[in-house]
Amino acid sequence: MNTLFLRALSGEVIERTPLWIMRQAGRYLPEYRAVREKVDFLTLCQTPDLAAEVTLQPLRRFNLDAAILFSDIMTPLLSAGVQLEFNPGPVVQAPLRSINDVEKLRVLEPDEIAPFVNSTIKILRRELKVPLIGFAGAPLTLAAYLVQGKGSKDFSVLRSFLYQEPQAAHLLFDKLAVLTARYLQAQIDAGAQAVQLFDSWAGILSEEMYRKFALPAVQKIFANLAVPRIYFAQDAAHLWPAIKSIDVEGYGIDWRTSLNEARNIFGNQKTLQGNLDPAILKANKHVIRHHADNILQTMQKTSHIFNLGHGIEPDAPVEHVSYLVECVHEISKQIRQG
Amino acid sequence: MNTLFLRALSGEVIERTPLWIMRQAGRYLPEYRAVREKVDFLTLCQTPDLAAEVTLQPLRRFNLDAAILFSDIMTPLLSAGVQLEFNPGPVVQAPLRSINDVEKLRVLEPDEIAPFVNSTIKILRRELKVPLIGFAGAPLTLAAYLVQGKGSKDFSVLRSFLYQEPQAAHLLFDKLAVLTARYLQAQIDAGAQAVQLFDSWAGILSEEMYRKFALPAVQKIFANLAVPRIYFAQDAAHLWPAIKSIDVEGYGIDWRTSLNEARNIFGNQKTLQGNLDPAILKANKHVIRHHADNILQTMQKTSHIFNLGHGIEPDAPVEHVSYLVECVHEISKQIRQG
Repeated sequence: MNTLFLRALSGEVIERTPLWIMRQAGRYLPEYRAVREKVDFLTLCQTPDLAAEVTLQPLRRFNLDAAILFSDIMTPLLSAGVQLEFNPGPVVQAPLRSINDVEKLRVLEPDEIAPFVNSTIKILRRELKVPLIGFAGAPLTLAAYLVQGKGSKDFSVLRSFLYQEPQAAHLLFDKLAVLTARYLQAQIDAGAQAVQLFDSWAGILSEEMYRKFALPAVQKIFANLAVPRIYFAQDAAHLWPAIKSIDVEGYGIDWRTSLNEARNIFGNQKTLQGNLDPAILKANKHVIRHHADNILQTMQKTSHIFNLGHGIEPDAPVEHVSYLVECVHEISKQIRQG
Repeated sequence: MNTLFLRALSGEVIERTPLWIMRQAGRYLPEYRAVREKVDFLTLCQTPDLAAEVTLQPLRRFNLDAAILFSDIMTPLLSAGVQLEFNPGPVVQAPLRSINDVEKLRVLEPDEIAPFVNSTIKILRRELKVPLIGFAGAPLTLAAYLVQGKGSKDFSVLRSFLYQEPQAAHLLFDKLAVLTARYLQAQIDAGAQAVQLFDSWAGILSEEMYRKFALPAVQKIFANLAVPRIYFAQDAAHLWPAIKSIDVEGYGIDWRTSLNEARNIFGNQKTLQGNLDPAILKANKHVIRHHADNILQTMQKTSHIFNLGHGIEPDAPVEHVSYLVECVHEISKQIRQG
């Protein structure tokens, strides 16, 4: 068992920087596209054998140090009674816009929330030689889709809802916090060895609004989970002073923001994860090596997990991913064993 | 002539906080929609009588302290040989992806760049009792559309281009800087009394990439303009240490980011402009007053121009805009004359 990823999260001094890639099971892989030709996205998420298969695909190609459950942040909401499509992003049939809408949202027991995920995790734990990361969407990011109804540049309908209906909004964040905490606990019970909470849309709020609605819900979710925890808030440098108060082992850092600055704010005790710009994978190998090297030189021997600064893009060349993995292995060994 | 806006930009102690609204001539106004029923967006921009008419519309309804030329950041690119549609955002027929594409971009003399804009400005100066703001898009934001081809969540094609084709990218930014400097100078020569440079997509870059490509171009544009200058970079708190080096009188601050923090970084000598969340205009009057008051209390008697933190939205109720204007007048007088 390769435990480098877990040891990095526990703050141990490690001999090489562990590496995984957000959305590593995905459309850039021909073997993934082959599976998707046969089943739609939601069926794939809900069919444990297939979800386990695509989770394992990138591990067969690349020397990665962690696997992440193949699923979607929106799938636990199916159990809560939300009607969803993917086109290709999530589209909510009846967006929540009032306290009545929010009251109808069901918060089930842990084993009733997306039970297919627990089966997928059990299959994966039998197969995997690296740690398995469970994950969920943070309440703000789930609320963004639930209220707006679909993806948006700046989720203005959600923001209006927070200003105009604070009571409904608080109820929504409370329910999503309970749902998400139970969902992650179920993943841990099934075998997930770490969890990552994705707050892809954190950046749309001011610090004041983030502290009022999003932050307490994130804190509740992380309060009672007994595995290493990573919080990934995207485009959120203006929220770091607030995010700093979240009790986690690791922070995901997106490509826009600076690992140096993150180190200054979050301190040496925390593990930082990131942050190669996914767009770099579409440049040439010289550029890839240069930027991977930059990141590893910046992080030196501090607690760091190498990753992209956002999910890998569907048109990233597979051979560039291989090359990135080689570079990270080689350079980080030089730095950490030098 | 109401010179409050210009006096605020010159750092004078003023008796009331001046106020204008980004995209104040726009779809939330029924009289604007009436004009748009007759002509398409590009025709409207290119027809001086009509562009002047819609520029004046919000001034007839609200007690605003500045007018802003009605146009689009992409219109000067028409003179550069770029084929454009609006659908509703800009769509570039042949996106620029190579050095050959960039070499074809024409940089004309000042009076050849969007000459219709100069005629619009001359009409406006005869009619207006408040200062007229000229504007342009910053090179990064123009490049975002030129390379990506259309709006995007994170302009990944542009980012790949910057990594993969730095020489072509530098040539593009140089050309856009010259074009934009000439275009703004022409607006000033025609009568614009201040200029604002919109860098709506600044936030997609890391500080390193911003310093390499975007910042030098912005600095070149502002170097020789003899009217007060405002730079509005959106979602750019992580870039403020770089942006601080730009020589302007005012900085636009978007709704996500903190006026307090901006004051700390940019200092007391600069005028800050912003930053009410446009989504607040869709909440009730109590919420609008509360947040307008918060901003004015934060800024106290320091150099400040009230504005939204981004363009007003098409579904903002007109009566809420009136109410906001009243609140800003009343509260800022109390603070500044108290």
